[in-house]
Amino acid sequence: MTTENLISEIKKKKSFLCVGLDVDLEKIPSFLLEEEDPIFSFNKAIIDATQQYAVAYKPNTAFYEAYGIKGWKSLEKTINYLNQTYPEIFTIADAKRGDIGNTSSRYAKAFFEDLGFDSVTVAPYMGKDSVEPFLAFENKHTILLALTSNEGAYDFQTKKIAKEEVYKHVLKISKSWKNAQNLMYVIGATKAEYLAEVRKIVPDSFLLVPGVGAQGGSLKEVCKYGMTKDINLLVNSSRGIIYASKEQDFAEAAAGEAKIIQVEMKAILDGIS
Amino acid sequence: MTTENLISEIKKKKSFLCVGLDVDLEKIPSFLLEEEDPIFSFNKAIIDATQQYAVAYKPNTAFYEAYGIKGWKSLEKTINYLNQTYPEIFTIADAKRGDIGNTSSRYAKAFFEDLGFDSVTVAPYMGKDSVEPFLAFENKHTILLALTSNEGAYDFQTKKIAKEEVYKHVLKISKSWKNAQNLMYVIGATKAEYLAEVRKIVPDSFLLVPGVGAQGGSLKEVCKYGMTKDINLLVNSSRGIIYASKEQDFAEAAAGEAKIIQVEMKAILDGIS
Repeated sequence: MTTENLISEIKKKKSFLCVGLDVDLEKIPSFLLEEEDPIFSFNKAIIDATQQYAVAYKPNTAFYEAYGIKGWKSLEKTINYLNQTYPEIFTIADAKRGDIGNTSSRYAKAFFEDLGFDSVTVAPYMGKDSVEPFLAFENKHTILLALTSNEGAYDFQTKKIAKEEVYKHVLKISKSWKNAQNLMYVIGATKAEYLAEVRKIVPDSFLLVPGVGAQGGSLKEVCKYGMTKDINLLVNSSRGIIYASKEQDFAEAAAGEAKIIQVEMKAILDGIS
Repeated sequence: MTTENLISEIKKKKSFLCVGLDVDLEKIPSFLLEEEDPIFSFNKAIIDATQQYAVAYKPNTAFYEAYGIKGWKSLEKTINYLNQTYPEIFTIADAKRGDIGNTSSRYAKAFFEDLGFDSVTVAPYMGKDSVEPFLAFENKHTILLALTSNEGAYDFQTKKIAKEEVYKHVLKISKSWKNAQNLMYVIGATKAEYLAEVRKIVPDSFLLVPGVGAQGGSLKEVCKYGMTKDINLLVNSSRGIIYASKEQDFAEAAAGEAKIIQVEMKAILDGIS
């Protein structure tokens, strides 16, 4: 998917909501456990119910790997379902990969070509040649961990390299990498005060913002400091949406939660347009 | 496996060789492609042929994920074979994972409990709470990316935080994490001159050293600066061993290459004991 398509979907749907599909068998409605593939059944229902409010879905691969081969089958079915049924939806493999060149190429092939994701999250620690293999794929996007939303973000990311924080250095340096137009960045919503700083360095890049909702970030703050004229934001919510209910109505409940966020987004988008 | 077991195996085998199982179907002997599971057949033969010279095996998960579900099955069969046939061998899932707390727990469970690896490689960028879930597993080991062997290592890892390089900061900070006794570190062999610096900070930790052989590192240099009285080194070679031949004799050829390194190791170990 091109960046233009994504922007146009956001404008059309008046939403930049990304739904995180972090599926835990202990958290999904118990009656689904009788299904042949409970994870896929859950995802399908959640997707069908929330897709009108969301422009992106983000399965975190850890939750699928935790179930071994069965989990990978569920992941494969989920991405296939998204690509076939809602080709206009942007898909993110939240895999946080990154390795030496030829190995990163393997990951890139697995997520972009074989599974058919539009984007993948990548850790920058190993530098340029660990990220560029991902960037080489046309109309595929690499979402670089820059400033994450967890406590540990303060361990290294906000430390200063010479005069600037490591995450700013990551932002600046990565802009010069080959095919940098395919880069997006993860910026934790719980650090809205940093967003203005981020925008000084990457004014037009898409930012994937986790941590609104359950992790306590404010959508208004995120938009105030992170939004551009083309929006260039994807705001993710996982648990707050997909685990809204454990009953028969779980999908409607998820839709309800998604709608609440989307309505808030619409109000903001209407305000700037 | 406990650290003591690993050290005792190293002393017994007079080897601290780790064989990287980065299996590429285009690189394995073509006659194996007729087998039901060419990757597993290849790994089994390589393991059987080289195990007397090696104390550890390290499949890089990217190479398995690249083949989707089939690849995961091959990985599962490989680790099961290792655990059942050579329980004294140390196993490393070279997965370079790392995510927020509850997600890292998933990865830890997948690699330590479900697959049964002794250790996993983890990227430190997200800090303490992204690594500690791995550390919580008893007699399991977390190998933290500190100073990697690729070009991109100079992008961030060798940059200075205040007065010290990022990788040193990673070493120092990570020592204070809960269950830090389960930490090992990746230190690229192509940077032997840094090893002395590393040892000042982590004198007793195991270092996983990639890059000897194909990537040009020198075993002697690595030992000179990185070895301790308990050795505390694992030196990895992947391509140099497993792709020694594409013919019927590929396993013997791999054994031959492994032996060359092991003989060099033995000479060094005999010299210090």
